[in-house]
Amino acid sequence: MFTLLSIDGGICAPDGFYADGISAGLKPDDQKDLAFIYSDTLCNVDALFTANRFQAAPIQHFKKGGIYTTNFVLINSKNANAMTAEAGIEDIDEILKHAKSRFKNINNPVMSSTGVIGVRLPKEKIIKGIDSFDLGKKSPDAAAKAIMTTDSYEKQVAFEVKLQSGESFKIGAMAKGAGMINPALATMLCFITTDAAVPADEMGVLLRECAETTFNAISVDGDTSTNDTVMLLCNQKSGIYNREAFFFALQKVMHELALKIVADGEGASKCVAFKVTGAANSEEAAVAAKALSNSLLVKTALYGEDPNWGRIASTIGASGVECDPKTLTITFGNITVYKKGDILFDTETEAKAAEVMKKSSFSIHCDLGISDGSFTTYGCDLGYEYVKINADYRT
Amino acid sequence: MFTLLSIDGGICAPDGFYADGISAGLKPDDQKDLAFIYSDTLCNVDALFTANRFQAAPIQHFKKGGIYTTNFVLINSKNANAMTAEAGIEDIDEILKHAKSRFKNINNPVMSSTGVIGVRLPKEKIIKGIDSFDLGKKSPDAAAKAIMTTDSYEKQVAFEVKLQSGESFKIGAMAKGAGMINPALATMLCFITTDAAVPADEMGVLLRECAETTFNAISVDGDTSTNDTVMLLCNQKSGIYNREAFFFALQKVMHELALKIVADGEGASKCVAFKVTGAANSEEAAVAAKALSNSLLVKTALYGEDPNWGRIASTIGASGVECDPKTLTITFGNITVYKKGDILFDTETEAKAAEVMKKSSFSIHCDLGISDGSFTTYGCDLGYEYVKINADYRT
Repeated sequence: MFTLLSIDGGICAPDGFYADGISAGLKPDDQKDLAFIYSDTLCNVDALFTANRFQAAPIQHFKKGGIYTTNFVLINSKNANAMTAEAGIEDIDEILKHAKSRFKNINNPVMSSTGVIGVRLPKEKIIKGIDSFDLGKKSPDAAAKAIMTTDSYEKQVAFEVKLQSGESFKIGAMAKGAGMINPALATMLCFITTDAAVPADEMGVLLRECAETTFNAISVDGDTSTNDTVMLLCNQKSGIYNREAFFFALQKVMHELALKIVADGEGASKCVAFKVTGAANSEEAAVAAKALSNSLLVKTALYGEDPNWGRIASTIGASGVECDPKTLTITFGNITVYKKGDILFDTETEAKAAEVMKKSSFSIHCDLGISDGSFTTYGCDLGYEYVKINADYRT
Repeated sequence: MFTLLSIDGGICAPDGFYADGISAGLKPDDQKDLAFIYSDTLCNVDALFTANRFQAAPIQHFKKGGIYTTNFVLINSKNANAMTAEAGIEDIDEILKHAKSRFKNINNPVMSSTGVIGVRLPKEKIIKGIDSFDLGKKSPDAAAKAIMTTDSYEKQVAFEVKLQSGESFKIGAMAKGAGMINPALATMLCFITTDAAVPADEMGVLLRECAETTFNAISVDGDTSTNDTVMLLCNQKSGIYNREAFFFALQKVMHELALKIVADGEGASKCVAFKVTGAANSEEAAVAAKALSNSLLVKTALYGEDPNWGRIASTIGASGVECDPKTLTITFGNITVYKKGDILFDTETEAKAAEVMKKSSFSIHCDLGISDGSFTTYGCDLGYEYVKINADYRT
């Protein structure tokens, strides 16, 4: 038994964590673009990385270093430091070497980047930015803002978890992500801090397990970036660990941030849950649910608020999973429009389904009627703004 | 040795074929929406159908009938007759039964439909339309127009093929397709007529072989419809068959129509060839090339005429094929922007690459530098118009 309390403070909510975000001149107009997370004691660290074969330099650097403990994470936006070969890794070495000489109590610093692919980091600007850091600051909002690219708002969450014994621990997180979001191993940048005493060897398992139904179940445009990272930092300060409670809290943190990312999908106005049940097994349910959240025709129908159930059916049929028109049922919110071969789509039903689609969040439920496999993904609509943002992104 | 001459006449170019398109009131404003293809002698017929599990009623009807010969194909647009269960098939039976009673010389008539999914056919309108058909008409333009949905122009092609012996045969075709185009078994509606004496048991093999590098290599939005059909009708009238010449002509017909479909992609302004070479094998080359033509981020960068090579690289990396930044080379037209780890993307190169992207058709070439697998796909940009067309399609 345990209770979760939503609290303020984002990544600085857990005991011993500090953060800030500043403008280092990578973005125009003095926008924040460089952040740090600092812990006053050493943390165990583990991370999930993108499935893209061209992993960016910061990911290669992390893996190469065999880093298991750290107390300093440096994050820049506007430049992904991807496709930059050995030079990209050397740039990180030089930047982090400088950080260590500037702040004596930094151990095994790591770096994370997001932004345009194929451009070397502006090293001097970043080094100058580091010089202005104050490690004693607790400014989670500024940090969350500094890691944004096409995000329209910062994404943070924090909980205090109280056990029945009266003991408690805290968990906080920030994330960025609005485009290039695909159900793959990891899907954006997300940094999670906690003062729970999670055993180091359980961190990766917990991250992977929670990612399956959260970050791996969301889609904005079906593309998988070179930089996706979900990082968990545990400084153990609370001395408390209850696996069940921590798993629940981590799942909740990742679920809430995943939904925030979908809701902030580039140009998106709706967050839609695609619930597939009755599939041959849960793998097939996931395939069908991901096909729905990725389909351009479904996404544009969401944008048009058009209960075009034919496109839903066609996408299920094209996904390759076992299915049959005679056992399929399609429901928008609580309005069933197609039931096991019967088209229930008269003018009245259509109007009711269209009403459901006007909401900013709702569910589309497809029961395949084959067996009991189920999976839910979260997606968004695709409108003019997505095209505008992505046609112009680099410039 | 043989020569191909481009000729007029579309599907009516081969000897003995007739066609027309009329308005039966399925589309508004007296637009053409019902077409027929008629041959004055019986044809062998074979077809490729969609890989979608929810195949539309006309496809089920064709397969159920075990039809191998026909001399009459009825095609309607605006309504796909898909997800309409047994009733959809019974509707076809009734419509074709009427056609047979109206025209005594019709044998084994077949039907094909395209349009909105999940609505019963307006049977009475179609039957009334059939009554007004004149089987002696040779109006290929009207037929090609009547099968259009969101297409902005009709798509036809015809060739006369002259053998060295002086003998000749003709092949003609019409197609429709502008959205929901995905590299799958078949990808739109396409009807090919010929008076060549193709052996019945070779037709399917030839169709499949030619589809691989034509209709299976194009993408507009990555969705696979319920109705995709490529149908070949051979009435043998020329008495001539030379496999090499016929294969070449069929390939040419399907390639030209495939490019016409991409160029007419919903809201598209550019047709781009994604040429992948140097892959581990041709299967991996196809996976990478299809990933490029399907990527939303690549498609929006094309629309923005932005030589954002990082997105090209990232898409290759995310496709799962064997690749390495140290052996990859990326070229826009004849401008190489990234070569085996070196970023050649200075201001001058960027300007030249941007110049290439202003053209209405060009190629993007990725040499993976692994082995000698190659494959080329054809795709288009994605702009505001795609969203507009698909948000509003049903209404």
